[in-house]
Amino acid sequence: MTGLAGELMSAEIAEQPQVLAALLANGSAEILDVGRVLAAREPRLVLFAARGTSDHAALYAKYLVEVKLGLPAGLVSPSATTLYGSRPALSDVLFIAVSQSGDSPDLVESLTVARACGATTVAVTNNVASALAQAAEFSVDVQAGVERAVAATKTYTAELLALFLLLAPFAERDVTVLDAAGPLAEAAHATLHGIGDLSMITARYRVATRLITTARGFSYPSALEGALKLMETSYLGAQAFSGADLLHGPMAMVDATTPVIVIASPSRGGAAMTPVIQALQHRGADMLLVGASWRDSSSASAFRELESPRLGVVTNGLVEELHPIVEILPLQSLALRLALDRGSNPDAPRGLSKVTRTR
Amino acid sequence: MTGLAGELMSAEIAEQPQVLAALLANGSAEILDVGRVLAAREPRLVLFAARGTSDHAALYAKYLVEVKLGLPAGLVSPSATTLYGSRPALSDVLFIAVSQSGDSPDLVESLTVARACGATTVAVTNNVASALAQAAEFSVDVQAGVERAVAATKTYTAELLALFLLLAPFAERDVTVLDAAGPLAEAAHATLHGIGDLSMITARYRVATRLITTARGFSYPSALEGALKLMETSYLGAQAFSGADLLHGPMAMVDATTPVIVIASPSRGGAAMTPVIQALQHRGADMLLVGASWRDSSSASAFRELESPRLGVVTNGLVEELHPIVEILPLQSLALRLALDRGSNPDAPRGLSKVTRTR
Repeated sequence: MTGLAGELMSAEIAEQPQVLAALLANGSAEILDVGRVLAAREPRLVLFAARGTSDHAALYAKYLVEVKLGLPAGLVSPSATTLYGSRPALSDVLFIAVSQSGDSPDLVESLTVARACGATTVAVTNNVASALAQAAEFSVDVQAGVERAVAATKTYTAELLALFLLLAPFAERDVTVLDAAGPLAEAAHATLHGIGDLSMITARYRVATRLITTARGFSYPSALEGALKLMETSYLGAQAFSGADLLHGPMAMVDATTPVIVIASPSRGGAAMTPVIQALQHRGADMLLVGASWRDSSSASAFRELESPRLGVVTNGLVEELHPIVEILPLQSLALRLALDRGSNPDAPRGLSKVTRTR
Repeated sequence: MTGLAGELMSAEIAEQPQVLAALLANGSAEILDVGRVLAAREPRLVLFAARGTSDHAALYAKYLVEVKLGLPAGLVSPSATTLYGSRPALSDVLFIAVSQSGDSPDLVESLTVARACGATTVAVTNNVASALAQAAEFSVDVQAGVERAVAATKTYTAELLALFLLLAPFAERDVTVLDAAGPLAEAAHATLHGIGDLSMITARYRVATRLITTARGFSYPSALEGALKLMETSYLGAQAFSGADLLHGPMAMVDATTPVIVIASPSRGGAAMTPVIQALQHRGADMLLVGASWRDSSSASAFRELESPRLGVVTNGLVEELHPIVEILPLQSLALRLALDRGSNPDAPRGLSKVTRTR
């Protein structure tokens, strides 16, 4: 590793608006074509297989399937196949594996078994020459370019957009989809541009050993991915909870010494965080709000009155299901900055390599 | 709240062998009957809805469905229905909601919508008069008796056994099922009896602010539930990871100051923890092993050579898919004892009530 600490991760975070714009310009037609073929097969169930950061992209896509496609969806446990030899009946099933490298043996085996069991298989990867992409009937290239930092950033947002495009033809016409995604690169650029100096925020977490992230609905994967970035780069014990699950038990561990990052833009998922915010206020938690401004929102006064610091997200003109692609950006930037402030190099996290090979 | 701190939770932990024996003696015939009716409908997919502790029971059952029934399975995101109004097509789907109280509005709404969308619906609860039990086509009573402690213990193991019985008729004859479950109450009794003095273990965690639990396969839900108990009662930032996911990123935050509880008995899931143990050793983690002895096991020398302390579990004669019902017992006991040592009352965790009402 040469160069300044965090140089790779910093460059890849900054690259995201261009990656999104390029994927829309050069990849969307092909991905929409694949999506149209998949929709024509009329699957009755969609299963996802993924690990790590890509698992959060898969969870995002699971919400898309449940909400926009009106189909049941699940995240498979790869160990059911790889450890226990499960051979499920999967005709009429769409099986989508998501992996940056396309190289994880358990995902290759899961997908290969799913294909043999009758599923329509799709690999969403950043490497169309990978074993996973080769094993699948359909391969989707997220076109993020080589990712050199160990902590995935640009491949995550590219996976989200690719999955959005892949599933859109089930429910929408292409022109509607492309109109919806049109403002995305500009929103990502404006969000990154608006982050500014993070030192007032990172100072709050410099000596923290743990931290909670929370959100609901489409933003819940952002809470999971934000927590993973903080774990990978800053070695914080960061825990993500859906707002609803946080109220079922874990709220007990929150007190005035617990930092909590709440991700909530004005949206259905964001509005549902109101009782969670109230409970966190009641427990005296140290809150940071990540999301678009609630100032002009007609509801959820809990947010408007909140005096916690805020990391802004620009969601102008974006439908709620595209918010995750921009709201992760300040969290990636926070993880990078905090790692540097805590004296670690986010480009080379201890104990990790870029490709994790699990079975 | 009167009585000694932890009295209720302590009594309910101790009650579990009798609860399991009584459910087998008095409830198994009826649950197997329901399971047989469900199997005859030949569902092509099984979906689960649950929150908190019951969500871990649902995840356990998801492994059963994938491994033993050879059917695809998923955990639904209740918010897809309750926040976003999803109305998925669910004919040929078996929809199982799991809830101690049967009182959570989001689960009642999820199940009601699933039933209206064509699913066969089952409520697994500890209250057959609850709204959830009433809303479902089939109701399964876990017969654990009233649970008074806020932290669920006996209803969790009763839910696991009820789900095991409910799903067994898809793959096994009743006599095989009852033979398999026969040694369960005795194994639970022997496990609880063998725990002994926990003070040497709790001393390790008395000043901890965070802790990691990890396991794979059927034991992964035990890692999640163990972490939740520690969060609820001892206010530790306890994080559960599947062993495979731990290697994908979070391993970076593990160092010599990180307590890690590894749940692994000699079994396929346990043996798959070998690379995880090796990575944890490499990072110098402070490990505690929870599980049956590896002494007589032919493989996984990483476990036999491990000099970490161990909390024993008696799994004699039990198939791997029943291990979770006994291996959670030392973790419940640890959470209780640690809470008392840290000066909190596990019967009345701060900020929690017994029934959490989320939408």
